[in-house]
Amino acid sequence: MTQHGTLGVAVIGTGKMGADHVRRITDVISGARVAAVVDIDAERVKAIADGIKGCAAYTDPAEALADPGVDAVLIASPGPAHEAALLEAFRHDLPVLCEKPLTPDAVSALRVLEAEQKLGHRRVQVGFMRRFDAEYIELKRVLSSGELGRTLMLHNRHRNAYCPPGFTDAMLINDSVVHEMDVTRWLLEQEITAVTVHHPNPSSNAPEGLHDPQFVVFETDGGSLVDVEIFVSCGYGYQVQAEAVCEKGTARIGDQHGLLVNTAGRWGGGIAPDFVARFEEAYDREVQQWVDATRRGEISGPSAWDGYAAAAVCEAGVRAQAEGGRVEVEMIERPAFYR
Amino acid sequence: MTQHGTLGVAVIGTGKMGADHVRRITDVISGARVAAVVDIDAERVKAIADGIKGCAAYTDPAEALADPGVDAVLIASPGPAHEAALLEAFRHDLPVLCEKPLTPDAVSALRVLEAEQKLGHRRVQVGFMRRFDAEYIELKRVLSSGELGRTLMLHNRHRNAYCPPGFTDAMLINDSVVHEMDVTRWLLEQEITAVTVHHPNPSSNAPEGLHDPQFVVFETDGGSLVDVEIFVSCGYGYQVQAEAVCEKGTARIGDQHGLLVNTAGRWGGGIAPDFVARFEEAYDREVQQWVDATRRGEISGPSAWDGYAAAAVCEAGVRAQAEGGRVEVEMIERPAFYR
Amino acid sequence: MTQHGTLGVAVIGTGKMGADHVRRITDVISGARVAAVVDIDAERVKAIADGIKGCAAYTDPAEALADPGVDAVLIASPGPAHEAALLEAFRHDLPVLCEKPLTPDAVSALRVLEAEQKLGHRRVQVGFMRRFDAEYIELKRVLSSGELGRTLMLHNRHRNAYCPPGFTDAMLINDSVVHEMDVTRWLLEQEITAVTVHHPNPSSNAPEGLHDPQFVVFETDGGSLVDVEIFVSCGYGYQVQAEAVCEKGTARIGDQHGLLVNTAGRWGGGIAPDFVARFEEAYDREVQQWVDATRRGEISGPSAWDGYAAAAVCEAGVRAQAEGGRVEVEMIERPAFYR
Amino acid sequence: MTQHGTLGVAVIGTGKMGADHVRRITDVISGARVAAVVDIDAERVKAIADGIKGCAAYTDPAEALADPGVDAVLIASPGPAHEAALLEAFRHDLPVLCEKPLTPDAVSALRVLEAEQKLGHRRVQVGFMRRFDAEYIELKRVLSSGELGRTLMLHNRHRNAYCPPGFTDAMLINDSVVHEMDVTRWLLEQEITAVTVHHPNPSSNAPEGLHDPQFVVFETDGGSLVDVEIFVSCGYGYQVQAEAVCEKGTARIGDQHGLLVNTAGRWGGGIAPDFVARFEEAYDREVQQWVDATRRGEISGPSAWDGYAAAAVCEAGVRAQAEGGRVEVEMIERPAFYR
Ligand SMILES: [Mg+2]
Ligand SMILES: [Mg+2]
Ligand SMILES: [Mg+2]
Ligand SMILES: [Mg+2]
Repeated sequence: MTQHGTLGVAVIGTGKMGADHVRRITDVISGARVAAVVDIDAERVKAIADGIKGCAAYTDPAEALADPGVDAVLIASPGPAHEAALLEAFRHDLPVLCEKPLTPDAVSALRVLEAEQKLGHRRVQVGFMRRFDAEYIELKRVLSSGELGRTLMLHNRHRNAYCPPGFTDAMLINDSVVHEMDVTRWLLEQEITAVTVHHPNPSSNAPEGLHDPQFVVFETDGGSLVDVEIFVSCGYGYQVQAEAVCEKGTARIGDQHGLLVNTAGRWGGGIAPDFVARFEEAYDREVQQWVDATRRGEISGPSAWDGYAAAAVCEAGVRAQAEGGRVEVEMIERPAFYR
Repeated sequence: MTQHGTLGVAVIGTGKMGADHVRRITDVISGARVAAVVDIDAERVKAIADGIKGCAAYTDPAEALADPGVDAVLIASPGPAHEAALLEAFRHDLPVLCEKPLTPDAVSALRVLEAEQKLGHRRVQVGFMRRFDAEYIELKRVLSSGELGRTLMLHNRHRNAYCPPGFTDAMLINDSVVHEMDVTRWLLEQEITAVTVHHPNPSSNAPEGLHDPQFVVFETDGGSLVDVEIFVSCGYGYQVQAEAVCEKGTARIGDQHGLLVNTAGRWGGGIAPDFVARFEEAYDREVQQWVDATRRGEISGPSAWDGYAAAAVCEAGVRAQAEGGRVEVEMIERPAFYR
Repeated sequence: MTQHGTLGVAVIGTGKMGADHVRRITDVISGARVAAVVDIDAERVKAIADGIKGCAAYTDPAEALADPGVDAVLIASPGPAHEAALLEAFRHDLPVLCEKPLTPDAVSALRVLEAEQKLGHRRVQVGFMRRFDAEYIELKRVLSSGELGRTLMLHNRHRNAYCPPGFTDAMLINDSVVHEMDVTRWLLEQEITAVTVHHPNPSSNAPEGLHDPQFVVFETDGGSLVDVEIFVSCGYGYQVQAEAVCEKGTARIGDQHGLLVNTAGRWGGGIAPDFVARFEEAYDREVQQWVDATRRGEISGPSAWDGYAAAAVCEAGVRAQAEGGRVEVEMIERPAFYR
Repeated sequence: MTQHGTLGVAVIGTGKMGADHVRRITDVISGARVAAVVDIDAERVKAIADGIKGCAAYTDPAEALADPGVDAVLIASPGPAHEAALLEAFRHDLPVLCEKPLTPDAVSALRVLEAEQKLGHRRVQVGFMRRFDAEYIELKRVLSSGELGRTLMLHNRHRNAYCPPGFTDAMLINDSVVHEMDVTRWLLEQEITAVTVHHPNPSSNAPEGLHDPQFVVFETDGGSLVDVEIFVSCGYGYQVQAEAVCEKGTARIGDQHGLLVNTAGRWGGGIAPDFVARFEEAYDREVQQWVDATRRGEISGPSAWDGYAAAAVCEAGVRAQAEGGRVEVEMIERPAFYR
């Protein structure tokens, strides 16, 4: 790949997120093309490849990454398959955009960190797309500017209208609250050191066996306090809000007041139905910036370290949820490689 | 009436507004009591007086104003009866709070002005209650502070869910837009010099024979431009908004964002059903301040001149509405007495 | 006092709140007059009484309550003086509006409860004025209507620009968070059963020795979870917000979006400087409704039980704050008398 | 160009807008590349072309359009040069995205319409980018859905912090209000039939010789009434708002309430500095959709007819501005070709 050439991307996994990234690379963003698609479903992957000029279909990630047209890898397979795909990408020294989670637990994430460090240069960006959302970026800018002083607290709301069947208490931490874990670390530039999970009454709309909503409290090594309302069966729409409480003021995003309608005794507007609608532009921007950086031979965005940290905090969160009380987060010290 | 005594008020007219003022003076505000009620309906007026300690019932305003317990007069009878009641109050040199309009036309309003001037001191406050509304007061404060520079334009929205049966095009000016005429004069401290009325398509919910909504443009002697959307069958609630466009910024009131509810795919809140709900506190404050000033032997609030000016602008508005085009306002010069 | 007569109120304590209530009864609300004022400062109390027709000055509450012109008592003295004043009022069987706290601790509050029960009828209303604020009333209406389903969580923000000198951690619970304790009990109609206090980094604007802000979590006997951000040196203004998270939606008050100004690259509006400005109308409504109910021979509003419950929760809060961890609230069972 | 091939675009004009489109096609959107750039400044155009792989530099539009690598044309030269460039593109039967205005006046626009009709198929999309803005699209969706009934009025605010030197009254119509002309026609699906221009006091910040702000009223052939506040030296930021008043409610966009900050006695947020910031995503979406449609061999978006209509309304607007009073719009009947 020359500096000005188009980046050939192998997309591993063609489920909901993978297929959407294939569409994004092909039809939305610039500077990249889908050179290979990989899925264990041979028919599915062939059908997708047939619709894209110069795109090959594979069922084996290792074969795909050996394809000479592949310059970079986007991993969108299920979490348990991530470690093998990452190590294979490292073997070919390919840049990777890996959908969250980096891997499903802290021990395996640590193995990825070690493998990446052996390459001698960073190759991994993890798919925490909120860092690319215009409102979060604006919030980060305000907090970083210092105009409001230090951030003391961060209040978060994370609401889904419905959750998929089979959603468990652990998934509520690992798949949902993990976003607030990353947002906390990114906005505050602090590590999370302890987690407490409070359980209010479950909603009568919560699926059998799920304690929903829950209220999660993080402590950080910078002394900030973060709370997260997670409510995945709130019924009325998808809503993500964050309010930073600083020494000289507060800043809040997520009110979504675009179109205001007055009708039938009410004023107000619509609420996004799901995260795809809410974060569509963040996904576009995330992949575009990864492509741009990769074409420049650079790496940016959330690193494998961020993926590992999220995994470690998730483990503490799941334990706090199951056992009650406050659980401390166990993490290795941050290697200089990731500073 | 001593300076610390309770003000005995005669309320003339016991329709919707009059009855509400009786309740207000009796149960809400301080420093006044209803000493006399007047209505041509003898039974009605007796029933009201019977419920209030020390309150006499009259069918003749002149008799009521001669009652030694009466220290001040609140006129809430129909507009055509105002002139006679005002002149009778002047005969007894009584302070008056006169519901708008001062009188139904500019010529009769002028007679009232002349009569008041003969008293040698002002006695009349006109019931333009928006001047006592917290949001309008705040808007006036911002405009007067000079922080936004001179006011160049004022955009107004005036919407009623429904209008009473028999509402006419002329009433739309005389009863509704008259509030924006007064608000314009008060906020900008300028006189209105010309009126233009634009007619969009009528709503299919407008009553037979009424052109609703209409869009009214005022020019002022200070060179400001004011527009008013008047829509008395908007269906969805009562809404009054004002946005001042100044040299260094704009200021808007009337969004009514008190309680915010998220539910069923929507965010938003409720809209006041009518002017009674929206301006309840403004009415309380208006009457309280009139009572307070009267007990101190002072006069404040909108004067007979403001009532006359509104009548003169209404006449131009009704002509502009009927004839099309731009109609200039005809007014006498403001007497020093009213400066 | 006859049913239609004016209520003669003795105001005990003429500090900031007491003096404001004297003004309120005299100049703002209807149906009552200040018949007696009491303060240990003889000169101060005489100066106040001299300005009000028919008002006597006392330095001894017992003498004041024996004054034949006194029909009811408003206690606005410091908390430690409340118990004696309440018991004295019970001796004369006088209705009482007692500023919060009922008494400074749960044991003394319990003694008041017992004394009131011996009277055989309720006489005490406690001064939790938020129950009379238009936005809180609207929030209560929405929650009670059932349209949003059961309330699962309640998020509260309570911010003061500055706190008075000498403000302590315990006062932060007893004087500030006590409002959210009452609001929680009133909105949810549940008792608080446990309190946890989290300590983020203190603001560098917090006074020496004060841990500010703090983050307080309540559990209730109905299984709801309530969090309160208390921040008494936030610097930028006074702000009280509450967001109820229900099964079918959320409802939030306190955004204070009255006047919207666009200027110099910013849109927005002003923030109330303090609780007097924010809750002015709530205080007016509180005292008016107490006067109205008293004149009808009724009792309404927050009862001595509510004062006791707040004291018991405060004790748990102060312990949780000092000791860390979760502290259970100790309360007697609610007597039938207070149901 | 095959259906799946990358579209080779010639960009004519490399001023502010042209250069931005070059960047957009190269770095932001997918499916297209800049195959040729044209500018009378030979050095400038060479420097741009040198930075883009496979891009040729021209000073003569006719030569550029004859380049075999050119599949489509984006015209971003000054308005007076548009007609020649359009006719040249027609000669090669190339699809065109033409920045507004189509041409500087209605007569020349009519010539373009006639030339396009001779081709036998439509080739022109005009650059009215607001049709691609997310908020306008949402407003259009609400109005088209019928849920609010027919649209009776449309209130518009169009404010720039500052205007470029040499900005004239006519440019205020032709360059600024032209956007509201197109928005009106697009949202209401009605033609504008008459224009009136009101002149309030000019702001003391308006440049010498410019009457700013102005207030423009459109009438439409569907009987709707549209008003536009145009204020190009408002000083505080860039702001575009639209409020549709319908039979069953109103809908407003442009409040821009993304990030809400509380600080120093104020709540609020930031205002976009200029149209580039406000409409950045609209421009991206406009060019992407043009590329997508062109690659499918289709034409969509605002047509040459829309460009002609805007030119005709502008002419009436400029006359109304200069002469005062109401000026009727003169337009030919819409050819079936453009329906
Ligand atoms: Mg692409
Ligand atoms: Mg009274
Ligand atoms: Mg009173
Ligand atoms: Mg491209």
